Parts: sequence; structure tokens; C-alpha cells
Amino acid sequence: MRMYDLIIKKRSGKALTREEIAFMIKGFTDGIIPDYQMSAMMMAVYFQGMNEEETLFLTLEMEKSGDVLDLSGIDGIKVDKHSTGGVGDKTSLALIPMVAACGVKVAKMSGRGLGHTGGTIDKLESFPGFSTEISIEQFFKNVEQNGISIMGQTKELAPADKKLYALRDVTATVDNMSLIASSIMSKKLAAGADAIVLDVKTGSGAFMKKTKDAFALAGEMVKIGKNAGKETIAVISDMDQPLGSAVGNILEVKEAIRTLRGNGPKDFETLCLTLGAHMLVAGKKAAHVEEAEKMLYDVITSGKALEKLARFIESQGGDSSYVYEPEKFDKATIIEEIKAPENGYISRINCEEIGNCSLVLGGGRQTKESRIDLTVGLVLLKKKGDYVTKGESIAVIHGNDGEKTEIAKSRFLNALTFSDVKPEEEPFIKGIVKE
Amino acid sequence: MRMYDLIIKKRSGKALTREEIAFMIKGFTDGIIPDYQMSAMMMAVYFQGMNEEETLFLTLEMEKSGDVLDLSGIDGIKVDKHSTGGVGDKTSLALIPMVAACGVKVAKMSGRGLGHTGGTIDKLESFPGFSTEISIEQFFKNVEQNGISIMGQTKELAPADKKLYALRDVTATVDNMSLIASSIMSKKLAAGADAIVLDVKTGSGAFMKKTKDAFALAGEMVKIGKNAGKETIAVISDMDQPLGSAVGNILEVKEAIRTLRGNGPKDFETLCLTLGAHMLVAGKKAAHVEEAEKMLYDVITSGKALEKLARFIESQGGDSSYVYEPEKFDKATIIEEIKAPENGYISRINCEEIGNCSLVLGGGRQTKESRIDLTVGLVLLKKKGDYVTKGESIAVIHGNDGEKTEIAKSRFLNALTFSDVKPEEEPFIKGIVKE
Repeated sequence: MRMYDLIIKKRSGKALTREEIAFMIKGFTDGIIPDYQMSAMMMAVYFQGMNEEETLFLTLEMEKSGDVLDLSGIDGIKVDKHSTGGVGDKTSLALIPMVAACGVKVAKMSGRGLGHTGGTIDKLESFPGFSTEISIEQFFKNVEQNGISIMGQTKELAPADKKLYALRDVTATVDNMSLIASSIMSKKLAAGADAIVLDVKTGSGAFMKKTKDAFALAGEMVKIGKNAGKETIAVISDMDQPLGSAVGNILEVKEAIRTLRGNGPKDFETLCLTLGAHMLVAGKKAAHVEEAEKMLYDVITSGKALEKLARFIESQGGDSSYVYEPEKFDKATIIEEIKAPENGYISRINCEEIGNCSLVLGGGRQTKESRIDLTVGLVLLKKKGDYVTKGESIAVIHGNDGEKTEIAKSRFLNALTFSDVKPEEEPFIKGIVKE
Repeated sequence: MRMYDLIIKKRSGKALTREEIAFMIKGFTDGIIPDYQMSAMMMAVYFQGMNEEETLFLTLEMEKSGDVLDLSGIDGIKVDKHSTGGVGDKTSLALIPMVAACGVKVAKMSGRGLGHTGGTIDKLESFPGFSTEISIEQFFKNVEQNGISIMGQTKELAPADKKLYALRDVTATVDNMSLIASSIMSKKLAAGADAIVLDVKTGSGAFMKKTKDAFALAGEMVKIGKNAGKETIAVISDMDQPLGSAVGNILEVKEAIRTLRGNGPKDFETLCLTLGAHMLVAGKKAAHVEEAEKMLYDVITSGKALEKLARFIESQGGDSSYVYEPEKFDKATIIEEIKAPENGYISRINCEEIGNCSLVLGGGRQTKESRIDLTVGLVLLKKKGDYVTKGESIAVIHGNDGEKTEIAKSRFLNALTFSDVKPEEEPFIKGIVKE
């Protein structure tokens, strides 16, 4: 078999077989198939696409290119959750304790990514002492005893995807639904859960700017999951403005804690309840989503979800007193209100740019080596559709560097559009894709 | 400017500007733009194409990526000729002396390529002592005095094309008319002639299997030539069977000599007269092709063309007595007739496979390091449309290795199709493309 012939085949619009895809992925991962052939193939895929079967084969071959976690030692149905990413996305911090409090076990191996803020692990490290550098025995024990554990990525999950994505990223071959879906799903499948709930975002702060594309991606991923024998559900939600109010690591942790106390922003709570309900149903802890939502409400009002978070933090060496006294968290040195520059409705928010403000303040990683400043960020006091009067506070900015704070403030204001007309209200949850 | 953005632009079907193409070709030649980005770009070009302007810019940028020969020191209009390649293509050997005898000066810098037989230089080296390793002064002096010189490639002509072609060759991005045409024309433009006559082949032994594609390629090349300010004419001819009768280096040299004596195969003579006539008109030595063909006939019958070949061989150190006594050339040790296995018309010849027979016998280069055996090859006694009876000699094979000769013999027979029905006669010259 020759890669050259496979490129010709795909170029002419034919479907690759399982053997051909296996040859290609193995050869590429091993460095036998050079980057320049793979990038030509990826561009051919961009133009000719991959059918459902090819997409599945690609996902499975990337999944088995590295380690595949075996969670069978843990009783019950393990449900994983994946977000396509957005601004102010602190969902795991509130969602995981909620579902664990309802009996669904969550065993996650996570890495640190690039982004506007840190990832879940970075945010959890706001709790003094908390560590994901635990042994695999400890990881399993924590899941058994408390229903939650998050471990740093010690195994290499889907290295083929990592290598392929890096190549696609510099050769303008990212934008293909089959390739995006297989990239995400190969890692999810390697992570070993029995069912997967996907949190797919759409809007100006999301990878998928258009709702149509978000549904298409969700459809591709759900198909792959089902074809791979795992129950998979996708929830499509709005990311045309930041999720909740807080953007920035510690600020988001505090917002998650507020939400677990029943005082969270409405959109964020809705997302946690919706995703959580599908996780509970997939994990066979509830018969239907209505029952599941009721259970999730109950663990918030009873304080069990908050307690679950505290136990989780403790079980990985963290100081759980912060869960009950969040005012103990470190604060930025500059905390300033941002005032409305004019009267009017906030008609549009360039959500990605709000994320960039967090990055400017030092809250995210631009390169793998960047150090994150956990204290900085923004809290939105007003959101899309709100009427503001000139001089009214619309956000609070948290920074540690005067100049950076000024830049972020000015970029924040530029990211907002004001209008005399109230913008059309859009549904926050756009839909559910199950099959 | 970023290559990534140029890939996106081409991917979405937009035309690249001159500046963008210059950036891309310079960056790629200098090794700043990596292979994997260029191969993705080439695949995007495969799908989206390049317009006439982009194709011209690409050609010109590749032309100026290296040395450009300055032939202005030689008086008169210098006419170059280029063949897209085929089996039994000994055209230059007869054509150049013919046109030079009519007053058109030919100054060529040539390299050695891969192929079924050697290139023109390899064939010329059949004459003992002949060398293309001459100084640039000698090269110019020979053209002035004798009207012909061929020099080994001491300058680097269009290195960008060389690098790009090598990449396209392994990434399945050769098959695009703009890219093929710009590759050929960048080298031709760098070679410094004032006018270019293109010998474009079509059929089972040609790069362009389909006549339609040959015309398309011819059209692209003629457009580039004109847009670059050089008169350019393409002659499209049949390569659905070997050109003439001989395939193999010395065998072809002998056939070229026979042709210069007026005893050559009809198709080969026709091609030389047609190409030569256009070269004479382009070189302003004849007013029209009819007059030019008459002049070319005359230099054959008068012996002036043959004499021109002899002077040319001498002027580069070769033994010109071989021109008059071709029986002095080395011969293969095994010379055997191949007999018809059945009665019938030869209805089809897999021409490329006949070329492969020469390669099997050792007559061509499979890699740059291969040594060519100048004596081996095949002489066809019968061609397409001829009726043969079982046991009749249809070809003579020349080999130096018993086993290889048997393999080539069997492959030769497999390349022929016999039929009870006489095949439709096809015109040898398919057409002329001038604008």
C-alpha cells in the first residue's frame, strides 16, 4: 500500500477502506508517512469529504494510536462530558459535583490546553494544595469512594490526533466536520467512559460561529459515538456572549460555587441542568430528563452538590474550606468598574474578544510555557439585551498590571455594540442531538 | 504575509496576486515555507485551479528563481523546441541539424532526465568522444560558427520548479494543467530562446493520454509563452504507438541518421518536418510553413542536414565518421527477432509498456544514479494497422542479458493487441495550437 495511491483515491472522491485508513494513521504516527503527504491528503479530504464509515474508521484508528483507558474496574456506567470550548466556560466545576451527588461517577484524565483562561485543572488549582498528580490507584479509589476524580494526563491518549491536528492547524485543513468530529471523538473514546455528553457551543465566542455548523458537528460526533457503541448526546448552546458572568480562573471558580449554592447566573445554571440531566439519564440514574432535572435541583438545594465539591477537593489534597468561604481566594490588585459609554441596549457582544481581554490580563496561555495568573479576569454585570445608561457600571475588571488592565478595558468596550433597539431574544439552548 | 492565509485564499477559490505568488515561490525555494504547507496549497490548486494571470505569474516567478540564460550575444532569432516526452522520441537528433542547415540557430542547455531511454545528451554520447562539458565561450562559438550547440546544464534553471515538481510528484498534485504548463514553461523561459516550438504528444505512451488533455496543455503553454512575450507554437502528435521504429539509444541515433538521409520512418519524418517548419517560420527563415517544409526537404536531399549533424558532433569532440558509417556503433550481444504469435491486424499497442521494455533491457534510467546501456532496445518491424501472419517477424530485440531480454520480449508481446478487424486510421498530427 502506498500513501500516494490513497491521496489519488481520496482526491478523486472515493471512500478509503478501514485498512487504508489504518495504514495511513499508523504510518503517519510512526513518522513513515511524511507531513507533506498527509497535508495533501487532508486538503483532498477538505474538498471531497469523508463518509460516515470513513469518519468512524479514522476516529477508531486515532483512538487506538495510543493508550486507551480501562475504567471497567469502576462499577456502574461512567459518563464523560466534553465541551467544544468557549468564553467563561466553567461548566465542569459545577456540573461534575452535581451529577456525582446524584450517583453518576466521573473519572477524567485531563491535560492543560491553550485558551482565554486556563482549563479545568488550572481552575481547580485555585484551591490551595489541590493536585491532579495522583497515582492511578488513588484515582480509582477516589472515584469509588466519592464518585469523582480528575487525574493529570499521564497516559498518551490518541497521539495520532495530536500530531494530525498540529499539521492541520498550519495547513488550513481544520475546517472539515469529519476531521473535527473524529479529532474530538478519538480522544473521548480513548478516555474510556461508557457514555458521552457533548457540550457544543455556537456563536461569536465558539469554534463553530454558525448554529448550522454546530448542529452539523454535533451530528457527526453523535454518529461516531453511536457507531463506536457508546451512547452519545450533544447539547447545543449559545456562545454569542460569555457563559454566565465571570471570565477568569478564580472568578469562574467562585461563580461555580455560587451556582452550586443556587445563586448562579440563569444561563449557566440552565446549561448545567440540561447537560447534567442527560448525564443522569445516560448513567441510568434517572428514567427521563424531567426526573433528572428535579434530582439535580434537589442536590443544589440540599447542599449535597456543594458538599460533593468539597469532598472532591479534599480527596486530591486541596483546602476545601474555600468552598464554604470563597472570599478566602486570592484577589487581583486592581479591581475597577467599567462604565457604560452611552445609553442603549447591549445589542451585540463580540464574545471571542471578551476572551482575548482575559488573555491580555494574563488569565490564559498563549503558548504551552505561559504561566497563568489565576486572579485576573472580568465579571459582566450586564449582558446582551440589557438596557444601560451612560456611566452605569457594566462590568468589573480584575488585573495586576495597570497597562494591561487599561488595554483590556478598552478592548472590552470595543467588543460591545449599543443600540436603541432591544435585540431579539434568542434561545440559550439551541437543541439536543441524539441520533 | 503568511502562507497559511494564502492556502485559505486558494482553498476558497480566490485568485492569488503576483505579490502572493512571488512570496510563496521565494519562501518555498528558500526553505522558509515548509513542504507540508506547499503540498496543501498544491492540492487546493488541484481543486480550485489557477486563472491565466496566476499561471503566468507562477511561471515567471519560477523562471526567475534561478539563472536565466542570456543568448543575446548570438545574432538572430534563437528558437527552442521542447517535447513533452514519449517512446522512441529521437526528434531533436534529426530536427536540430535540419533547422540549423536552414539557418535557424539552436543553443540548448540540457540536463539528463529519467525515462525509458536516455535523453538527447545520452544519445549524442553514442558518438565516441562527444561531450557536452564545454565552456560557455565554446558553446557560443559553436552556435556562431555551426548554428548548433548543446551544453550540459551548468547553470541552475528554475530551481523552484525542480523543488516544486519533486513535491508534487509524491503528493498526487501533478495533474493540473496550470501547474504542468508553468513547470515546463518556467524552464523554457529560463533557457533564453526568443521563440518556442512545443512538441506535445498524446496517447498511451505520452504523459497526456487523452487528446483533449494534450490540447488543453498546449493551450496553457502557448498562452504563457505569449503572455511572457515569446512566440510559442505547439504541435500535437500521436504517441499511441512508438514514434518511428526504433526504441533505445543507439538504435534511435541510427534511425535519426537514416531520416536525415531521407530513409526514415514516415511518422517520424512528418513530425520533424512539421516542427521544423514552425521553427523556420518563427526564426524568420521562411515566410510560411509550406516554404519551410520545402527548405527542410531540400537540406535532406542535398545532404546538408546530415553534414550539419557531422559538424555538430565534431565541434563537441565527437567522431563524426559514425554519421556516415553508422554500422560502426556498438551493438548489443543478443539480437533476436520477435515473431507474431497469431494472425491478425495489430489493433492496439500499449506504448508505455514498449518504453518499459527498453527500461527492462537497461536502456533508461530508473534512478538518477542508473547507468544507461546505449546498445539495447527494440526495433518495430510492424506497427498499428499492419496485418501479420503467425510466425512472421514483427520486431527485433537488442539485449545484453539473456534473462532481461526474455522478460522484455514477453512484455513486448503482451503490449500488443491483435484483431481480425483493421483498426481505424488516426491522423498522426492532431493539430497545431498557436494562440
